[in-house]
Amino acid sequence: MNIEGIPYRTIWPAEDGVAVEIIDQTRLPHEFVTLRLENLHDAAIAIKNMLVRGAPLIGATAAYGVALAMSDKTSDAALEEACATLAATRPTAINLGWALARMRALLLPLPPGNRPRDAWRAAAALCDEDVKINRAIGEHGLQLIRAMLEAKGEPVNILTHCNAGWLATVDWGTALAPIYAAFDAGIPVHVWVDETRPRNQGASLTAWELLQHGVPHTVIADNTGGHLMQHGMVDMVIVGTDRTTACGDVCNKIGTYLKALAARDNQIPFYVALPGPTIDWTLENGVRDIPIEQRDAQEVTQIRGRTAEGELATVTLTPHGSPAANYAFDVTPARLVTGLITERGVCLASREGLLGLYPERKR
Amino acid sequence: MNIEGIPYRTIWPAEDGVAVEIIDQTRLPHEFVTLRLENLHDAAIAIKNMLVRGAPLIGATAAYGVALAMSDKTSDAALEEACATLAATRPTAINLGWALARMRALLLPLPPGNRPRDAWRAAAALCDEDVKINRAIGEHGLQLIRAMLEAKGEPVNILTHCNAGWLATVDWGTALAPIYAAFDAGIPVHVWVDETRPRNQGASLTAWELLQHGVPHTVIADNTGGHLMQHGMVDMVIVGTDRTTACGDVCNKIGTYLKALAARDNQIPFYVALPGPTIDWTLENGVRDIPIEQRDAQEVTQIRGRTAEGELATVTLTPHGSPAANYAFDVTPARLVTGLITERGVCLASREGLLGLYPERKR
Repeated sequence: MNIEGIPYRTIWPAEDGVAVEIIDQTRLPHEFVTLRLENLHDAAIAIKNMLVRGAPLIGATAAYGVALAMSDKTSDAALEEACATLAATRPTAINLGWALARMRALLLPLPPGNRPRDAWRAAAALCDEDVKINRAIGEHGLQLIRAMLEAKGEPVNILTHCNAGWLATVDWGTALAPIYAAFDAGIPVHVWVDETRPRNQGASLTAWELLQHGVPHTVIADNTGGHLMQHGMVDMVIVGTDRTTACGDVCNKIGTYLKALAARDNQIPFYVALPGPTIDWTLENGVRDIPIEQRDAQEVTQIRGRTAEGELATVTLTPHGSPAANYAFDVTPARLVTGLITERGVCLASREGLLGLYPERKR
Repeated sequence: MNIEGIPYRTIWPAEDGVAVEIIDQTRLPHEFVTLRLENLHDAAIAIKNMLVRGAPLIGATAAYGVALAMSDKTSDAALEEACATLAATRPTAINLGWALARMRALLLPLPPGNRPRDAWRAAAALCDEDVKINRAIGEHGLQLIRAMLEAKGEPVNILTHCNAGWLATVDWGTALAPIYAAFDAGIPVHVWVDETRPRNQGASLTAWELLQHGVPHTVIADNTGGHLMQHGMVDMVIVGTDRTTACGDVCNKIGTYLKALAARDNQIPFYVALPGPTIDWTLENGVRDIPIEQRDAQEVTQIRGRTAEGELATVTLTPHGSPAANYAFDVTPARLVTGLITERGVCLASREGLLGLYPERKR
């Protein structure tokens, strides 16, 4: 997507061919800074300190981390060490383990001398695959937005929660891919951006990337969506997901469930955009079976922003002595989901719907 | 309620009898500072700059503002000027106009020489009435909490939104009155405190007053309540309201509707505590007929807190150039409300329910 009119991905090989470049996402939305990752250590730090975030982008960065390691030392031991180092950066990120397993399986059988070249190629291929999946999600979701425009005859208002945009992937994003596809196709869209407390990924990342690409949008407090829906100001909701069960229950950023309830109460379609690999075919009942990560309470009691002087500062919001709790995700039951937008098409949020698109999963 | 073990109201006559004292609520939860209001101007500034806030407390401060004015000049012109000055501070606050009309109607017929004494008495009486109403709300709500304890046999978890506590009234509060009554009666309670973006009245005021009175509580992001309800961690919801229609629709801080939806989806009782005077008998359909105030977008894009150095600072959360919208209230339809807790008892959120408690309103 574009930044000040120039197309970017979130990760790309440097022109000199010996490093990888990324956007330092910890400084968004206040500063746009790109950084060079020169070696394994740089890549590990970038993931660990969340300079890059979002499951697909973490996987891509890990793959390039292996490539950087291979450019330095090509032995089996070096490969194993690279994979172990990168795996330890964010233990719960599913794509991280998947990308590392793939790199290791590809490289270990090769003669060490071939490993650098093939590692770089494999990392690039992994990125291209992510882009391809997300473009396909965008194309399928675009049809839903186009149909809404045709039914309504006015600009389409779409509400989204958290950041499932291109910054979380290599390009396009998941929930935002249909919005970018619609915007690029000339369909008038406007996005209601939930700020998404406590980490404010909506106010910082989603707003920033929509702003950069030129997509009309408005930031709102997370409390606002229900009121907007009651008054006909939202035509559809599109969110991402970290994990979808085989029955279509959707685990996503905390607060997603509340928006799904409001959408249902106001007969507004609620869509979830997801790449097929995030479907967990082993789970059925998401509310019962998906463990919900509890994060540091400081994410609730404190917040970071830009002072009038332009510096980044962290301030405390709560009284000294009041405890806080920080549940990071919730589960939206399939019954509240109008449809799942995947790279293979749109389906009902049900076992039958998902198996229709992924028939190879039938036993 | 207590602050560090000492009982306080939010407004009280100074010991020397020539001024009124308040808590500067703009400095909560970071600093506890009381201020003297010496004259009409001080009272007007206290309301205008939100040193005091909450409809009942605004009314009480306006009444004392008239008393302060009468201590200075007792003429008809002085009375009219005091009422006009105070009325202009927060044009939309219903209790403000009500308190001023009451003071004016009482004082205007009196000989000017009697006005100071009677104005101070009337202001004190108005405060005592507010406390009496809120205590009665507390006693009625206490029965609901006690019943929940008896049914459950474990500490009762209550979720609340925004600040409908004693800081918004003269004492006790509305939504928090049942909680204080239960706590003081030895019933084990724990309160989930929605931080209540964008103005964070939950994280700053509700958390602070519960902390000071010693009531166990946990601050959460507004996104969290649905997840807690799905997992049996909320036994009941109690919120306040700014305006209730004759049919029981409830206008309250933005986001209340989302919690009501989640409570209904999880079969959790959702109660609204209100003093009878906040019922608007002229309105029926709240979603259709109650105008929703839009406030400055800066309340969404910026936030204020305490720096590590202990200073108060405002930081910007959104990218420069991203617009924001700030709807201050929403309406929860009566169908989602389990019961209304009033000073006269608890009733269904319906015309029949309300008329059962306020039969004088039958035509």
